[in-house]
Amino acid sequence: MEHAMSDDPTRFSNMANAIRALSMDAVQAANSGHPGMPMGMADVATVLWSDYLKFDPAAPDWADRDRFVLSAGHGSMLIYSLLHLSGYAAPTLDDIRNFRQLSSPCAGHPENFLLDAVEATTGPLGQGLAMAVGMAMAERHLNAEFGDDLVDHRTWVVAGDGCLMEGINHEAIGLAGHLKLGRLVVLWDDNNITIDGAISLSSSENIPARYEATGWHVVSCDGHDEADIRRALDEAVAETGKPTLVRCTTVIGKGAPTKSGTSKIHGAPLGEDEIAAARKELGWPHDPFVIPEDVLADWRATGERGGKAHADWVTRRDGSSHKAEFERRMSGELPYGEKAGRTLRKWLESPEKLATRAASEKTLEVLTPHIPEMFGGSADLTGSNNTKTAATEPFTAENYGGRYAYYGIREFGMSAAMNGMALHGGIIPYGGTFLIFSDYARGAIRLSALQQARVIYVMTHDSIGLGEDGPTHQPIEHLQSLRAMPNVLVMRPADRVETAECWNIALQQKDRPTVLALSRQGLPQVRNSPDEIGMCEKGAYRLKRAGSKRAVVLVATGSEVSLALDCAEKLEKQGIGADVVSMVCTELFDEQDAAYRADMLPADVFKVTIEAGTTYGWERYSGTDGMQFGIDRFGASAPAPALFEKFGLTAEAIVPKIIQKING
Amino acid sequence: MEHAMSDDPTRFSNMANAIRALSMDAVQAANSGHPGMPMGMADVATVLWSDYLKFDPAAPDWADRDRFVLSAGHGSMLIYSLLHLSGYAAPTLDDIRNFRQLSSPCAGHPENFLLDAVEATTGPLGQGLAMAVGMAMAERHLNAEFGDDLVDHRTWVVAGDGCLMEGINHEAIGLAGHLKLGRLVVLWDDNNITIDGAISLSSSENIPARYEATGWHVVSCDGHDEADIRRALDEAVAETGKPTLVRCTTVIGKGAPTKSGTSKIHGAPLGEDEIAAARKELGWPHDPFVIPEDVLADWRATGERGGKAHADWVTRRDGSSHKAEFERRMSGELPYGEKAGRTLRKWLESPEKLATRAASEKTLEVLTPHIPEMFGGSADLTGSNNTKTAATEPFTAENYGGRYAYYGIREFGMSAAMNGMALHGGIIPYGGTFLIFSDYARGAIRLSALQQARVIYVMTHDSIGLGEDGPTHQPIEHLQSLRAMPNVLVMRPADRVETAECWNIALQQKDRPTVLALSRQGLPQVRNSPDEIGMCEKGAYRLKRAGSKRAVVLVATGSEVSLALDCAEKLEKQGIGADVVSMVCTELFDEQDAAYRADMLPADVFKVTIEAGTTYGWERYSGTDGMQFGIDRFGASAPAPALFEKFGLTAEAIVPKIIQKING
Repeated sequence: MEHAMSDDPTRFSNMANAIRALSMDAVQAANSGHPGMPMGMADVATVLWSDYLKFDPAAPDWADRDRFVLSAGHGSMLIYSLLHLSGYAAPTLDDIRNFRQLSSPCAGHPENFLLDAVEATTGPLGQGLAMAVGMAMAERHLNAEFGDDLVDHRTWVVAGDGCLMEGINHEAIGLAGHLKLGRLVVLWDDNNITIDGAISLSSSENIPARYEATGWHVVSCDGHDEADIRRALDEAVAETGKPTLVRCTTVIGKGAPTKSGTSKIHGAPLGEDEIAAARKELGWPHDPFVIPEDVLADWRATGERGGKAHADWVTRRDGSSHKAEFERRMSGELPYGEKAGRTLRKWLESPEKLATRAASEKTLEVLTPHIPEMFGGSADLTGSNNTKTAATEPFTAENYGGRYAYYGIREFGMSAAMNGMALHGGIIPYGGTFLIFSDYARGAIRLSALQQARVIYVMTHDSIGLGEDGPTHQPIEHLQSLRAMPNVLVMRPADRVETAECWNIALQQKDRPTVLALSRQGLPQVRNSPDEIGMCEKGAYRLKRAGSKRAVVLVATGSEVSLALDCAEKLEKQGIGADVVSMVCTELFDEQDAAYRADMLPADVFKVTIEAGTTYGWERYSGTDGMQFGIDRFGASAPAPALFEKFGLTAEAIVPKIIQKING
Repeated sequence: MEHAMSDDPTRFSNMANAIRALSMDAVQAANSGHPGMPMGMADVATVLWSDYLKFDPAAPDWADRDRFVLSAGHGSMLIYSLLHLSGYAAPTLDDIRNFRQLSSPCAGHPENFLLDAVEATTGPLGQGLAMAVGMAMAERHLNAEFGDDLVDHRTWVVAGDGCLMEGINHEAIGLAGHLKLGRLVVLWDDNNITIDGAISLSSSENIPARYEATGWHVVSCDGHDEADIRRALDEAVAETGKPTLVRCTTVIGKGAPTKSGTSKIHGAPLGEDEIAAARKELGWPHDPFVIPEDVLADWRATGERGGKAHADWVTRRDGSSHKAEFERRMSGELPYGEKAGRTLRKWLESPEKLATRAASEKTLEVLTPHIPEMFGGSADLTGSNNTKTAATEPFTAENYGGRYAYYGIREFGMSAAMNGMALHGGIIPYGGTFLIFSDYARGAIRLSALQQARVIYVMTHDSIGLGEDGPTHQPIEHLQSLRAMPNVLVMRPADRVETAECWNIALQQKDRPTVLALSRQGLPQVRNSPDEIGMCEKGAYRLKRAGSKRAVVLVATGSEVSLALDCAEKLEKQGIGADVVSMVCTELFDEQDAAYRADMLPADVFKVTIEAGTTYGWERYSGTDGMQFGIDRFGASAPAPALFEKFGLTAEAIVPKIIQKING
């Protein structure tokens, strides 16, 4: 590595102090924020940015850039400082002055949707590192597909003690170690401080030994010694067979005379007096938000290496036979338009009873050969989630060309890795677990939604219909609690036709994740007319129109749609006309115009919802004068039919109640 | 240790084979379940039960019994076999015959509410071990308080590879290692198999080295060699300064000739042929569910040690000066009745603006000195959650008498440990984090609810009111998604008076957890009449009655109650009578009789809900013809007042919309 600054230590320290000054001044101006980490990691970041990180400030979307993830997202002023100083168009100095204000892209935590060069939204601790694992997986996979000429970059992470203490750290580093992701480097800000005080209050572990036990290469450095940092990064880069943890011993809030090294500087402004004293200690006499020309020039020079590398890469790309396909992949465009497909027509013509998880597998068998960017996996439930297809070979340390990950018993780690893959680009990740374990992965599902990432969650065993495994495995509140989350499509298809349509819709969502809730148990096919294709796109549709005068609309999802049809048949026999609406996705339905919604759910007709989960929330569609059939308690262990009977989810139990209500 | 069976290896193997036979036969009869683990761990369990575990089948509630937690809960037939064979009243042989049927307490996974001797509900992987950490903390704490005569027992765990791979494992063992819980022993079923196949598909870590790096003592044994198991358990018991991991090398499904050692036997019946072959291989000629008298007698003898130990303990307890207090503590009864307290009256007489998190701290300062079983803590947010009081000294390896845990950045681990403490008995755990991180802890919150455990979650920073930290830290869907979960009280108090009442209610819930959602920002005191005490008990109450003819009922929670009062004032000025209802807890309100509910929320009056979170679900209380003010997107980073304005949660924004609707 070239060591641009090492001939003049003052130039280096001025560069690092520019980060410190911007950080403490911005936090002071906002009167809130976290100065400790940026001040502590300023030296490490300056070395990384100067001579290691591959980036081009003029092209934040350059596909072969190194990925930099600030996992300790509260230290957001570190990345805002780095981006501004090195010459990105955003953030501007004014943006930094307005740190944490409504008008500024410099939010309290880095948000990928506010600044192009922020690779990931971080702040929920541990997830940045876990997303970086997914980025490093994506890099190796695309490298295997497109070669060194097009894809050959590293993933760098800055992580704090919080990121290393969170449970997801174990899952993420286990995956990275197992997959031998040698181009992933984690810079651990080892400052011995947490919010509550010294780390010895809550932890005694030997972190380097733990990482080594998990298949990582570990090196250490004095995080305030430029030469030592370089040595450590050189060692990290030299190791290509394992991911590397660089233990950077630092002083939190370095430069603040009385507060550095204490928890006081972690998450609060320094105060005017301490800032004045820090300016003296650092030898930084400049006014707030003023960066001297020479320091700025040194910083702007850091981006030049990358400009050259980027230009070379463009030349290689333009000469590559892979160019068109690579650009398509990175653009996120699917290889086909919005076609519904011949398979669907075939299925409509020959109805079959099938679990929707099995229908999902059959759909994937059709899709995965044609959509090479689909990258599957499961958290150790491959045979239950039905996520593996013939076209998806295992992704292993020996074969990065594969596109099926055995994620292990790591639901949260899998989900965060999928976020990282989606953010990296060039890949559409999907992964399976039981719907109940959406609880374990929930932090990552939320980040899929917030980051507008196309991640597809295949969540099977979606109700008491899973039967004997009992209440610990039976989702009750999960569908509604996921529907309550902004920017997620929760889809619960009723049969194999709807399942195929849902996959099609999910793949087209470039800016949001989808949860596919699928049954363990077999479900009859409820839609059989070849003319009816794409019905799921509006989120809800009329599957059956009332035969006699309509007295009730039955709204159901997934496995309860066929139950609603049974109920309708019984009602019609008694002269009560009943529509059946399949509400496959409430979020899409809510997006329809008022006329469509009123047509499906007329204001003046009695409405009944049926879903084998909590009724909480269903009043939105039934009205409070309608009825909601569901389960407002935990489930039980028994064969599925016994459970549906126990919880009153049979036509025999439901129909009399509807009739009583209509007559009463 | 006394080695009862070691003189006759046949007697030992028959005992172990009784477990194997019951397990494979019960799974076969149910046509579902997990025979692999019970068959693999039968030898280890037989040694443990015979000579190490302290238990009395006649008294499953004996306070000083050892706690046994089957963290790999899918192997439930192991514990059902052990309980039945060793002489507990339940499960009976008939219960086992009806494994996984509606009538049987032998559910798919062990449920603490179905069988007295099941210490914890397990199945969601990793959580059993993490709850055991809490049990071991409770044991050491009560030992420090009541001495060896009354409290002196061990906590034993059987865990599989899944439990060790889950992220929560890292949090749990980090806590246990740091706290030097030397009386905790984890028996790791090291069988090299996961559901997807060989563990090498997904993991390469050196687990013993990882545990050692985390402060654990590690020993290994051949899990099918009686003498070697004893040696390992002797070493585990001899180590009192560290928790111990016993690596038990086993063959999954041991005894099944063709399926043992493979993933095929993990979670499916063996089939009649394989069972017949296994009977031959094991030398077990007996019919299904038949246990020969001599084998049963050997098993029943295992309980006798415990009967004697229990009797000795009763003698010690009856002679102890601590007897009354110890029994009160273990019974779960509070030291006082349902008193509201003088503090509350004082607060009502001198209103003060206060963040509810600060009000919670002031309440805790009053409660903790008088309720010694309250055991506090925070996941590294002590100063933000306001959970520490003068009366709660830190609980550390050096001072188990303390009752405040610095849990570190381990939200899930903290929550599971609290479940373990509550299940152990003698302790009422409460712990803090930000409400947003309920996502990280959600799996444990669900188990608090399912296990009917009195755990109090102190969740501060409960809305956009936290301001600058932005969308990663601002709960939007969390209140509603927790309300959707069965058997949890979600309380969102509006001021310091309500906060104190909520604490009082939460402490009285012996069979369910409570989530206290508390504000970061200061809130005006909305209730000031000394006559009005205990209003929160019905979940919702009329805080203000319409001055003129009532035209609208405003329903709000927490920080939005004062906003609702502002709106009411503005409405009244325009001649529109407005009630204000503080809906502090929807679950308690739903439990009130119809007359009370109709009095608060009359069917024929226009109703408006206001809560700074998703509106999804609020139609239950407003009706679909009412209005719901809230936030149906992710938040943003800015000072709190700017955010309330941006999202339209001000009287200026709300009142005109209400008037328009009333007039329109």
